[in-house]
Amino acid sequence: MKGNVLVGQSGGPTTVINASLAGVLGAAFNCEQIDTVYGMVNGIQGVINDHIIDLTKEFKGNEKKLEQLRITPSMFLGSCRYKLKDPAVDVSDMERVFEILKKYNIRYFLYIGGNDSMDTVNKVSKYAKENGYDIQVIGIPKTIDNDLMEIDHTPGFGSAAKYIATSVLEMAHDTYIYYMQSVLIVEIMGRNAGWLTAASVLARNSYNAAPHLIYLPESNFSTEQFIADIKEQLKQRKQVIVAVSEGIHDENGEYISAKSTKTDQFGHVMLSGNGKYLESLVQKEIGCKVRSVELNVLQRCAAHISSATDVSEAFHLGEKAVDAVLNGRTDEMTSLQRISNDPYVVEYTTVPVSKVANKEKKIPREWINEAGNDVKQELVDYLKPLIEGELKMEYNQGIPNYIKPVDID
Amino acid sequence: MKGNVLVGQSGGPTTVINASLAGVLGAAFNCEQIDTVYGMVNGIQGVINDHIIDLTKEFKGNEKKLEQLRITPSMFLGSCRYKLKDPAVDVSDMERVFEILKKYNIRYFLYIGGNDSMDTVNKVSKYAKENGYDIQVIGIPKTIDNDLMEIDHTPGFGSAAKYIATSVLEMAHDTYIYYMQSVLIVEIMGRNAGWLTAASVLARNSYNAAPHLIYLPESNFSTEQFIADIKEQLKQRKQVIVAVSEGIHDENGEYISAKSTKTDQFGHVMLSGNGKYLESLVQKEIGCKVRSVELNVLQRCAAHISSATDVSEAFHLGEKAVDAVLNGRTDEMTSLQRISNDPYVVEYTTVPVSKVANKEKKIPREWINEAGNDVKQELVDYLKPLIEGELKMEYNQGIPNYIKPVDID
Repeated sequence: MKGNVLVGQSGGPTTVINASLAGVLGAAFNCEQIDTVYGMVNGIQGVINDHIIDLTKEFKGNEKKLEQLRITPSMFLGSCRYKLKDPAVDVSDMERVFEILKKYNIRYFLYIGGNDSMDTVNKVSKYAKENGYDIQVIGIPKTIDNDLMEIDHTPGFGSAAKYIATSVLEMAHDTYIYYMQSVLIVEIMGRNAGWLTAASVLARNSYNAAPHLIYLPESNFSTEQFIADIKEQLKQRKQVIVAVSEGIHDENGEYISAKSTKTDQFGHVMLSGNGKYLESLVQKEIGCKVRSVELNVLQRCAAHISSATDVSEAFHLGEKAVDAVLNGRTDEMTSLQRISNDPYVVEYTTVPVSKVANKEKKIPREWINEAGNDVKQELVDYLKPLIEGELKMEYNQGIPNYIKPVDID
Repeated sequence: MKGNVLVGQSGGPTTVINASLAGVLGAAFNCEQIDTVYGMVNGIQGVINDHIIDLTKEFKGNEKKLEQLRITPSMFLGSCRYKLKDPAVDVSDMERVFEILKKYNIRYFLYIGGNDSMDTVNKVSKYAKENGYDIQVIGIPKTIDNDLMEIDHTPGFGSAAKYIATSVLEMAHDTYIYYMQSVLIVEIMGRNAGWLTAASVLARNSYNAAPHLIYLPESNFSTEQFIADIKEQLKQRKQVIVAVSEGIHDENGEYISAKSTKTDQFGHVMLSGNGKYLESLVQKEIGCKVRSVELNVLQRCAAHISSATDVSEAFHLGEKAVDAVLNGRTDEMTSLQRISNDPYVVEYTTVPVSKVANKEKKIPREWINEAGNDVKQELVDYLKPLIEGELKMEYNQGIPNYIKPVDID
């Protein structure tokens, strides 16, 4: 008996979530056991709202369009941040979901997302099992934060890392031109895990030692030590470039960004990151030229410089999900394990989704130097292969030729 | 008689100033009348400090290294912001400059820079003429701001424009995924001229209408109208993306960024742009989700996405400078005029540097819509060809393979 697939995307954007969707489509279109592939618009919310589109009609036989999907950032199908109601407390969400799954004759439910989205995968697969629905549910990982358990690294991370490393190198070139002392503070995403900030280390090459200081949330941050570190660096070089995670916090766990709460002339609170706060601190304590740059959302959407390794892995993790459901797997997430670093080889597997949902993986403290202001070689070796390779991008009138996302609700 | 060339770079970075330097070197190395090409380290300051390097030794016969120079951002030779003392008031600077020019037997003096640097070109050439030195002095234009007179557009602008357009498109993809209302404010460089902010319009394509609002310094900015404009947009669409120039000001000429002066918890002033201010304004007046992104220095150094058109033109303007001095020209800047838009054709010329030095070119008011919140088709037509074409970049371990800049003082 043929079955239909329903696939959705959820959580925050990366540049390779659509590569995973393309992987699902590519595998499903070549598979006799699968009839139609449907897409949920805005993730599980689109199931509840019965906003479902026919992806087979949209993509099958159109290699060019599939290729365009593969390199387009963010979510073609739209996203959501909706947490399904626990059926033990209120069964209405789940009943609605299975009503819609029945309506579209769905046998395979695939969900691309981070640790919150794996909670949805877990809930739906559990409910199916407990209520005798013949439905396989598989999660496909994604997050720029690289904080998922049970996977060597997450799709989306390598591309964000490549953007960060490239941007820090380019800002180093921008900084080196004057003979005056200056400090550049680069604020990088990652509230609880410092992987993205650590990736700035990949900007270092034969002539560039920047970032000269790297501060991660896995180590307590002291503003006094920060100023002392910069003063020490300024003895050795004119320009000091610092990478700081948005999630750095003091020994009591208070975020440094919380110190930068400001009020404008009307007395209402202005939000900004810790970069601006540290900028003003350097200005006050050292007095040299100082600038802060917040990479902001660009680090998660700059698909024009995606890592080819990352795009390929995201695609294969999508393919692997189709393979998994056809082999009767459910309540699992597709994953990858690193077999070797040089040559870089990974193996695609599946892992129980319960081991991933609602958990976070941080950088091991032993991969950070003792002073907490730089990373160690083990971490560099781990990161290096993930940013390798460039895509052949197609441009139209000077801008990347991406695919139009679906019309969201 | 053979002569030597002295070439320098000055002012703020762009991604194509080294392409102009490569153009100078390429032309000079193929030229019988030229012996050695010297480079000033940190512009005119390097002349005063006698920090001069032999570029012939460094680059001649090394095509690979010249190609690497051509695509590396910022200044290989370092920069300066030094304004030469007016010899009518204090002749010491100029006497020192000509002492060094004599020391290195310099006959041709080439200077790559913006309107301030053209002041240096003007002063040096005038002093040479008045004091009977047989030295030709030619300026080569550069600035991301596109605000030089007597040139159709400036080298560096097209690449910054391509980065801005691409980033705004990518941020649009990032924004479209949720079904809730949101506003994204993108703050773009350009204190007095809005060219860079206007270039965000090139992010629009067959499916993307963002930026939905564009505010330039050439038109007075009203915060009331800004809020009204966004409310109007939110009636038509869920996500509104706004491009604002850092230089927007009210009808009295007061910068909007000046309104965002804030104090931190210790009572000292925090600097930030108008994006953060407008973000808090939208939060207060409209109350929807809102975020601001400052493109910051990335827009002037992201050479991995330089415009091939821009790089080529910068290179030719460097070549043209060698051609000009050999033809006895002095006190001029190399320039380009647009012959036609479709096909896009430019012609390389020279113009009197006195018409460029210390002047600024702004966007004609008639290229901006009456409401002052969008640009007109004439401006789009002007901008379009400038971001066309992509470079074949070489990467090493996942990051661009740029050239090491000289060790600056």
